[in-house]
Amino acid sequence: MNDSEQTAQISEEGEVGIVEYQDFVSTEPFHFESGGSIPELRLRYETYGHLNEAKDNAILICHALTGDHHCAGVYSMDERKPGWWNFMIGPGKPINTSEYFVICSNALGGCQGSSGPGSINPETGKPYNLDFPKLTVRDMVRAQSQLIDSLGIDRLHAVVGGSMGGMQTFQWAIDYPDRVGRYIALACAARHNAQTIAFNDTGRQAIITDPGWQNGNYTAENGPDQGLAVARMMAHITYLSDVGLEHKFGRKRRASAKEHFDIEFEVESYLRYQGQSFVTRFDANSYLYLTKALDRFDLHAPESLDDTLSGVTAPGLVVGFTSDWLYPPQGNRELVESLLRLGKDASYAELAMDYGHDSFLVRAPKLYDLIRRFLHR
Amino acid sequence: MNDSEQTAQISEEGEVGIVEYQDFVSTEPFHFESGGSIPELRLRYETYGHLNEAKDNAILICHALTGDHHCAGVYSMDERKPGWWNFMIGPGKPINTSEYFVICSNALGGCQGSSGPGSINPETGKPYNLDFPKLTVRDMVRAQSQLIDSLGIDRLHAVVGGSMGGMQTFQWAIDYPDRVGRYIALACAARHNAQTIAFNDTGRQAIITDPGWQNGNYTAENGPDQGLAVARMMAHITYLSDVGLEHKFGRKRRASAKEHFDIEFEVESYLRYQGQSFVTRFDANSYLYLTKALDRFDLHAPESLDDTLSGVTAPGLVVGFTSDWLYPPQGNRELVESLLRLGKDASYAELAMDYGHDSFLVRAPKLYDLIRRFLHR
Repeated sequence: MNDSEQTAQISEEGEVGIVEYQDFVSTEPFHFESGGSIPELRLRYETYGHLNEAKDNAILICHALTGDHHCAGVYSMDERKPGWWNFMIGPGKPINTSEYFVICSNALGGCQGSSGPGSINPETGKPYNLDFPKLTVRDMVRAQSQLIDSLGIDRLHAVVGGSMGGMQTFQWAIDYPDRVGRYIALACAARHNAQTIAFNDTGRQAIITDPGWQNGNYTAENGPDQGLAVARMMAHITYLSDVGLEHKFGRKRRASAKEHFDIEFEVESYLRYQGQSFVTRFDANSYLYLTKALDRFDLHAPESLDDTLSGVTAPGLVVGFTSDWLYPPQGNRELVESLLRLGKDASYAELAMDYGHDSFLVRAPKLYDLIRRFLHR
Repeated sequence: MNDSEQTAQISEEGEVGIVEYQDFVSTEPFHFESGGSIPELRLRYETYGHLNEAKDNAILICHALTGDHHCAGVYSMDERKPGWWNFMIGPGKPINTSEYFVICSNALGGCQGSSGPGSINPETGKPYNLDFPKLTVRDMVRAQSQLIDSLGIDRLHAVVGGSMGGMQTFQWAIDYPDRVGRYIALACAARHNAQTIAFNDTGRQAIITDPGWQNGNYTAENGPDQGLAVARMMAHITYLSDVGLEHKFGRKRRASAKEHFDIEFEVESYLRYQGQSFVTRFDANSYLYLTKALDRFDLHAPESLDDTLSGVTAPGLVVGFTSDWLYPPQGNRELVESLLRLGKDASYAELAMDYGHDSFLVRAPKLYDLIRRFLHR
């Protein structure tokens, strides 16, 4: 990150400060696109700012695969690390909480408090594990729509998200055209290509072939931690870029490794840490379900991309990043090309950044400006 | 592979036919660059064609990471799959065995008959496992030089190799300038960048954290098979290209998966098969040693690339492939740029092919012609 990027958090901006999560619970059965159902639905979420009287100033943030509902603020003044999009959300920030009521929920299928494979099935008193129904991005969005209903909101001012969040954003615009005022999708794709499916399946195999997985029936103390860590190491490489890794690590070495296969290069240390820390915060079954939902997501089906997007009415902004090789620029562009072919109000911006797929999670004033202005358009 | 590429094996070409491997054994201790040693050295190798009286028509082929000494011919007429470069080597083929005496040895550290971590240490009667010394590309080349000595060959007509084989090729030209008539390095690199080290370390972690690994002291019946398969799946993706995978598989599906996380997409089936079949032919400890040797390989060290290459005297041809993102074209170009800066006789060709890093293993007449002509220059 260069200096100009780091100084972007200018003094007129405030912080959302201490936040609390809440749980939305529906005791009605929730039916999945696959035909399966769960007897109750729980979504953990946070909100920042205030819903106005007209209830028309709400912005829904959709997080990425391994993100969560905690996208701004801190849980206590001792917390060193604020929510994952804290530089984007707050009083005076690009997503301005002095103006908007911001909502972010943990995705259905996740593991941070929303219903997912690790949740307790109230009918059995045990975790669902693989009895949790097959999951799609459409299911995630429909669960969110029930949360929005519960808040008394008919129509969102905007839906905003990156990566898996961008896919949800499109799904909102497709499934609920009357409820979406505008949408912003970052580092998105209409569908995974073969290479992305290949990486995801390799990660899933790392988990599934870990003896700790036990067909999904592991306990917290004895799960597929090694497999999950390996899956994360590999995926983490795909979230960055070769140029970004080279700038950050190159071939820098640590103190010389004594044992064979000890950490020798700095990049190994970084990656192994990413793998290990992921295990402490993420559930292996959730990882399996969510990556599968992403692999199955396909806006080109059942007919064509144009057909799928034909009912979209909200104006949309799509932002691709030059160094993103997981959801590359051309995959972002094709979404906007389709929208433009259909005569929709849609814009595309492509930002030259070296952070790969994760560029949307990096402090970058040029991204702030795009989002701030599009929300006000 | 398109039709024009498949018809490249024209009728005037012959086959080397049935071949046998041989073992070179030196009962002198072999000393490694790291300071370690083994009490005897064994290299398994094959030869095709005939060494002439002047002993000046020998070409050494250096294989890639998971390749072996069996690069042409078949072991029996029942064998369906010939050696890995069979389309390149034979009577009338680009590396013409009617003219040249072709040698290919299994790399030191490998697992196909040459001394490696899985070999029996004659001093203990047990496999070396992690007692095998730390390995470098220079060690591999020095072991090959002893094999060449044993064949009574002073000077090779050429050294040829791709990927790890390309690195060995350069090491030959650097360490034995008087013994190399010319060299051809395909899909090569002066060193690994951070991303490549990151992928390799992820693969190593998949193996090392597999409970079957047992700090390297596994048995053939109970090894880190799952970890090795995952490492291979991931590595295999890096050997191909997104475009190549998309052409071959796209989002083609198999009969619908009944169980969660069964194979759903064709690309998953292909990759899982690659992982499983790799386990039957490759040793996990060899994989660890060889990838480490590659990660440590660095022609920019100890001083600079120009300094390292300053003693090269042989003419060289380097071939990069446009879709190779593991050892990308710029890494191949920088080798030749350095050689040209130094006033050496060096050429670079960049072939537009969609097969990624593995392009050099694919039948491609445009590559044949380059190799055939350069060997005759």
